[in-house]
Amino acid sequence: MHIDPPREEWLNRQQRLQERMAQVGLQGCLVSQNVGIYYFTGSMQTGYLFVPVDGTPTYYVRRSLARAQAESHVRTEELISFRTFGQQLATDYPEVFPPETKTVAIGADLDVMPAQLYLRLTEAIPQASLKDASALLRIVRSVKSAFEIERISNAAAIVAKALESGIDALKEGMTELELMTVIEGELRRDGHIGLMRMRGYNQEIMTGVVAAGDAAAEPTYFDGPAGGRGLTPAGPQSSSRRPIRRNEPILIDIGCCVDGYTIDQTRTAVIGEMSTELLAAYETATAIMRHSEKQLRPGTAPEQLYAEALRIAEAAGLSEHFMGFGRDQVKFLGHGIGLEIDEWPVLARGFRDPLEPGMTIAVEPKFTFPGVGVVGVENTYLITETGCRPLTVSPERIYSKPAR
Amino acid sequence: MHIDPPREEWLNRQQRLQERMAQVGLQGCLVSQNVGIYYFTGSMQTGYLFVPVDGTPTYYVRRSLARAQAESHVRTEELISFRTFGQQLATDYPEVFPPETKTVAIGADLDVMPAQLYLRLTEAIPQASLKDASALLRIVRSVKSAFEIERISNAAAIVAKALESGIDALKEGMTELELMTVIEGELRRDGHIGLMRMRGYNQEIMTGVVAAGDAAAEPTYFDGPAGGRGLTPAGPQSSSRRPIRRNEPILIDIGCCVDGYTIDQTRTAVIGEMSTELLAAYETATAIMRHSEKQLRPGTAPEQLYAEALRIAEAAGLSEHFMGFGRDQVKFLGHGIGLEIDEWPVLARGFRDPLEPGMTIAVEPKFTFPGVGVVGVENTYLITETGCRPLTVSPERIYSKPAR
Repeated sequence: MHIDPPREEWLNRQQRLQERMAQVGLQGCLVSQNVGIYYFTGSMQTGYLFVPVDGTPTYYVRRSLARAQAESHVRTEELISFRTFGQQLATDYPEVFPPETKTVAIGADLDVMPAQLYLRLTEAIPQASLKDASALLRIVRSVKSAFEIERISNAAAIVAKALESGIDALKEGMTELELMTVIEGELRRDGHIGLMRMRGYNQEIMTGVVAAGDAAAEPTYFDGPAGGRGLTPAGPQSSSRRPIRRNEPILIDIGCCVDGYTIDQTRTAVIGEMSTELLAAYETATAIMRHSEKQLRPGTAPEQLYAEALRIAEAAGLSEHFMGFGRDQVKFLGHGIGLEIDEWPVLARGFRDPLEPGMTIAVEPKFTFPGVGVVGVENTYLITETGCRPLTVSPERIYSKPAR
Repeated sequence: MHIDPPREEWLNRQQRLQERMAQVGLQGCLVSQNVGIYYFTGSMQTGYLFVPVDGTPTYYVRRSLARAQAESHVRTEELISFRTFGQQLATDYPEVFPPETKTVAIGADLDVMPAQLYLRLTEAIPQASLKDASALLRIVRSVKSAFEIERISNAAAIVAKALESGIDALKEGMTELELMTVIEGELRRDGHIGLMRMRGYNQEIMTGVVAAGDAAAEPTYFDGPAGGRGLTPAGPQSSSRRPIRRNEPILIDIGCCVDGYTIDQTRTAVIGEMSTELLAAYETATAIMRHSEKQLRPGTAPEQLYAEALRIAEAAGLSEHFMGFGRDQVKFLGHGIGLEIDEWPVLARGFRDPLEPGMTIAVEPKFTFPGVGVVGVENTYLITETGCRPLTVSPERIYSKPAR
């Protein structure tokens, strides 16, 4: 069932990291996070990946070594003990850690590595001065290979099918959760692992959010324009037990993670008809999408897309409703997507490095009306040599069903 | 739908933390993790909870402030800016941060807080010397209130119902994933948020694992005795697409998270009959369970339960198969459970602080036979004043269906 990338791809991933490391003077990089380890090795077992600035990486595995050895495409060895990890590294990489040198600059994924582990690693590898290499790792991952693009496309086809099942099942009076359960069942049967991985601390997303009317418009901690009410303050996002009623917008912002790769898409649905105000806001969202598509090409600064979307929203008199409402707005138009849902680049102020071919980006213009609902659309695009190509395959329209 | 604990419970939780802080000389505690914040405030929005060693805590919220103010049971204020967080704390808590003092010992949840955030907080609150307070926080949470016990019992009833639906649907030739999807659908409809929260770094668990025969026995990174094959090396645990066959053990290790609280249980099923060897191992697992039940009472050292279970396994000639196989074994018999699935105490070497009334512990003796399968059982127990009481309600037996 699972297909691996071609052999040279693993080498390419590692070399792109090594180039970045050389540019900033890192002698090595220690990857501790499951997703990061998988990206460079093809395995996700517990351990650490060490990538020297020159030469061959080693995957030091605590558990399960047997499984890691069966799956990994890089040199894979037993992590003898945490306490002696520094000695093991010094023995394996004398050129990185020459005996006469006191400390060497080693990058690590400090945006996800727990502080307790960071402090313990500092003791276990006293010859390493751990630097934050999160940005490097995220930049390397932002440009996808043909293999990765195919995986995301596959996830896109699966989510499109689940949306159709959801629309088929949609009826007045069913709860958000009931509709979500139909969609989730489809996605799971097609290989969704049940979780869309997210890098941000404290962020959780399983299958996205199906939410209607005022419940969709409730503000949340979730780092997106619309999180939904959720079932409980102990799970304050996504679908709730609120019944779906006629003539209100239904936000179907869903995705899945299949073979490790994630897709994210949003469609607006309605039973009956939406008000003129909401229809106008939906049209503004699609206008932003069309305008964004023209700019999604190599060379554009990601922050420009957000700035221009803001301008279109403002011209439509909808600034306060754009990407959440009032003080609960998020300050972006979209995000990179791949093994995680919150990858780089973010379409937000401060992201100036130009778009490159191979980047995959979810663009999600949405408008929130407190007490009323959320309308909008979200597509995932691939940046090509000359522009962009949608990976999302669900037809872009309002999914309406007659009220009876 | 959601029910809050009684008003005095919030004060009690905070006071128990303050007592522990005073014992170890911490002047305050900063809680950053979503679950930790929820435990002390009743809300899970993005921000930080500061608990002084004496006096009233404050929940500093970045987003959504409106939602946090609606949900929180402690003083809730806007986090003005990350950069000035230290000044905001110094202004609000002059007794904790007296102007003449250089640095003050402040605890934090460093086992989950990312290193990057830890380093940034160290700069933003220069007057605080951040200490690892993970153990304190875990100890406080290990003893549950009547309200919490009721929530876990409620989750236990929901998972028992889902198991029945799974057993009804079980038939020869269906895949592990198909059976899991039936169970998950039931659990979701009954309020499972889709994720069983786990504190351990890189650990993921959505609904547990349904796995049969050799797939159940595959070693994994997952910090439990049996993780399962999973769908992909990028999701290397839980159910796979392997068909379930007759006369092989089917591991149904499932749980849910409802209203924030988690339950965890395991039952062994079979279509047809298991071999004498597997039946004997199952009997040893239940013997360990009966022996554990006698020791689950206030005063017992958690590590003693693990040591005695090892002894019973050894006497049965099953040491190498106990809690995983060979070098992929885990070194525990069970774990605390509540808002997270990997709470304290762990029934493992080094856990010597005696059991206390109110602790809730999942006990999971299991035996792994590579290439053949996993058998075992798991119940969650409440420690009472005089012994223990099972919270799990599913009948403890082998769930067998006839092969046709």
